[in-house]
Amino acid sequence: MVLRLDHSSEDFASRFDAFLKTKREVSADVNADVAAIIDEVRRRGDEALHDLTLKFDRLDTRAAGLRVTEAEIAAAYEATDPKVIAALQLAHDRIASHHARQMPKDDFYEDALGVGLGSRWTAVEAVGLYVPGGTASYPSSVLMNAVPAKVAGVERIVMVVPAREGELNPAVLAAARIAGIDEIYRIGGAQAVAALAYGTETIEPVSKIVGPGNAWVAAAKRQVFGIVGIDMIAGPSEVLVIADGDNNPDWVAADLLAQAEHDTGAQSILVTDDAGFADAVVEAVERQLDTLSRSDTARRSWRDFGAVILVPDWDAAVPLANRIAAEHLEIATGDPEALADRIRNAGAIFLGRHTPEVIGDYVGGSNHVLPTARSARFSSGLSVLDYVKRTSVLKLGAEQLRQLAPAAITLAEAEGLTAHARSVGIRLNQGDTGGAGG
Amino acid sequence: MVLRLDHSSEDFASRFDAFLKTKREVSADVNADVAAIIDEVRRRGDEALHDLTLKFDRLDTRAAGLRVTEAEIAAAYEATDPKVIAALQLAHDRIASHHARQMPKDDFYEDALGVGLGSRWTAVEAVGLYVPGGTASYPSSVLMNAVPAKVAGVERIVMVVPAREGELNPAVLAAARIAGIDEIYRIGGAQAVAALAYGTETIEPVSKIVGPGNAWVAAAKRQVFGIVGIDMIAGPSEVLVIADGDNNPDWVAADLLAQAEHDTGAQSILVTDDAGFADAVVEAVERQLDTLSRSDTARRSWRDFGAVILVPDWDAAVPLANRIAAEHLEIATGDPEALADRIRNAGAIFLGRHTPEVIGDYVGGSNHVLPTARSARFSSGLSVLDYVKRTSVLKLGAEQLRQLAPAAITLAEAEGLTAHARSVGIRLNQGDTGGAGG
Repeated sequence: MVLRLDHSSEDFASRFDAFLKTKREVSADVNADVAAIIDEVRRRGDEALHDLTLKFDRLDTRAAGLRVTEAEIAAAYEATDPKVIAALQLAHDRIASHHARQMPKDDFYEDALGVGLGSRWTAVEAVGLYVPGGTASYPSSVLMNAVPAKVAGVERIVMVVPAREGELNPAVLAAARIAGIDEIYRIGGAQAVAALAYGTETIEPVSKIVGPGNAWVAAAKRQVFGIVGIDMIAGPSEVLVIADGDNNPDWVAADLLAQAEHDTGAQSILVTDDAGFADAVVEAVERQLDTLSRSDTARRSWRDFGAVILVPDWDAAVPLANRIAAEHLEIATGDPEALADRIRNAGAIFLGRHTPEVIGDYVGGSNHVLPTARSARFSSGLSVLDYVKRTSVLKLGAEQLRQLAPAAITLAEAEGLTAHARSVGIRLNQGDTGGAGG
Repeated sequence: MVLRLDHSSEDFASRFDAFLKTKREVSADVNADVAAIIDEVRRRGDEALHDLTLKFDRLDTRAAGLRVTEAEIAAAYEATDPKVIAALQLAHDRIASHHARQMPKDDFYEDALGVGLGSRWTAVEAVGLYVPGGTASYPSSVLMNAVPAKVAGVERIVMVVPAREGELNPAVLAAARIAGIDEIYRIGGAQAVAALAYGTETIEPVSKIVGPGNAWVAAAKRQVFGIVGIDMIAGPSEVLVIADGDNNPDWVAADLLAQAEHDTGAQSILVTDDAGFADAVVEAVERQLDTLSRSDTARRSWRDFGAVILVPDWDAAVPLANRIAAEHLEIATGDPEALADRIRNAGAIFLGRHTPEVIGDYVGGSNHVLPTARSARFSSGLSVLDYVKRTSVLKLGAEQLRQLAPAAITLAEAEGLTAHARSVGIRLNQGDTGGAGG
């Protein structure tokens, strides 16, 4: 039975608090194992990759080669259903044109004193993209991670993907080709993360590592953070649907199940002001569950983490939505924009009855890598900004230095930093360069 | 003796590689201690804070109160030298006006298909600012961390600062008041980070924690990451000065020492094309060292991690600078802009002979919280962007859904996600809402 909460019940506040605190993920402590693997890759390079890939993926990369060949990528592309290729291409083009609008602009100006200030954006030089193997190997995720990097101007994008017993998903390689990635290695796990961070004989290190992965991959990313940049550590997916009674319960049920089928730890929540509609959705979910290819996963997710919350009106819904801070928020009401304007914490908002979240997973153009586990309170979905960095620029002439020097010296002295004070003071009352040429 | 490297020597490449890999920080493994402290604060709340503060800071907060009172803040402001207040106010105003330009703009548009796409920026609701105690308690850092948060629109900024034996730096409280912070707690260490992340009876939790701290604070931030957002984990400070022979060696020496006096792990590097100038700077450093209030720290930093690198020309300097990816880069050459244009990796660049890095520490207007330890390859200095998050917005009507549905369904099926496919497919060939009202 799915959890049902009623805003008007006396114990709602405490039950909602408890619901928010539910842990949906038990991550095994693999830190020590991961540290050992990273250490081995640092010491033994390619040899470690060969050994670990043979052990974990039952693949002999000494024979197959670490790098996926151009011919293999081309063959995978040819082997992929042309309908899928066309859909990936459409997705690629829509993602690229939306993300192009995110490119931040440089800003240089002189202030009233004549001080030159600037912010200059440049792309990260090399990025590693982790792609999981097996059933979680999604071509759409390859596009979502790689396209913003290309748009940002990242010159080198390196993909790693484990090939259990040699198997690679052709659609993943096709997506990589569509995204313009040609440097792909058939390695996975913590060893792949270590190779990207530290480099081996075959693999040049990168500056940042992105992409989802299992507990080993997540732990490895945490451990190499600092040596390289990493993206967020993603948790199980979630959707919050705010819907009135004018919706078709089957549509809303389908949306809740689209989230639930991802993972037994996924979470689907309905908030509605219509008790009859809530009942109808719960029934529709039960009906649809039996017909899904991943019905076991969806059933467990819905049973363990699903929730249906009845509210008296949308005023009551807004603070709940902001506390849930859902990765995905669908608003299917008469005036979805009015409600959306009041939502502060959400990874992505899908407006109206014809915007199922799934469109955003594939072809909407916006990114499907979004903050999970309430982290939309403080973080954003993946974007071009994740692949660029800002350098600030400052320029003073002798006159500007004279104007700002006294305050700088005062603060340096107040902080007990006499060399700081001298670095400013020594430049006052002297020639233009203070040097032989001045 | 400071390390001297000559680009023209045969073993330069390997010596430069070794130099880049030098570890400047030995961080004690305090993870287990920190985990225990966090656990205690989560279980016992205020009581844990009282006990831990008595133990670590020898301060009885049961008597003094956890929160610094309004009267204490006002008294500290009054007790601070008016010259320092004026300098802090100038710094505040310059930081505020520069950072106001960083506020990202919302972007809503319809594409050619009529799909509505948007990016909406909102401020993080509550931010915790960690301020170290003792000699590292810098009022300038309070401004650098707090002002961008205010500019971003963060409603609640909570400061924590350890008060060893009750002592607080009045200038730090004055800076907080100038920045508009009135919620301040006299706690520090891992216990303060835990209180900010999880909350106690007295302290409401925040959504993000920023600010520098010792090994315990850094470990605690890593451990609570995910529950709240965190800023970068800062390492020891560093400066790279690229200077020609037309500079006054005393000026450049002063700049190198301003960095070195921060910390024995700080790093100061000179790159020059003039061997005689290099010698003159090394001599000037030795001469100035004796006159500093923190000469022991500066001497150790310069001896252990300082470097002087001779290059034949600036073409040779550019790739070195990009690999060093310095937190601070001063360019004191005839045409500093031309050289700066070729630098890709740097936290902040200071142009010309009259822009000592110290100006950027205090009153330049740009932020002094910058990426250390080569992380400028993939990250940026603190900015308004660290205090806002983006929600993406998508809106389709029935017609747009009809156009995008086939590709979305194709990709969902290719990924084996039948509930995804249904969530889109079920909305086709039906009325406007599919519901009773449709």
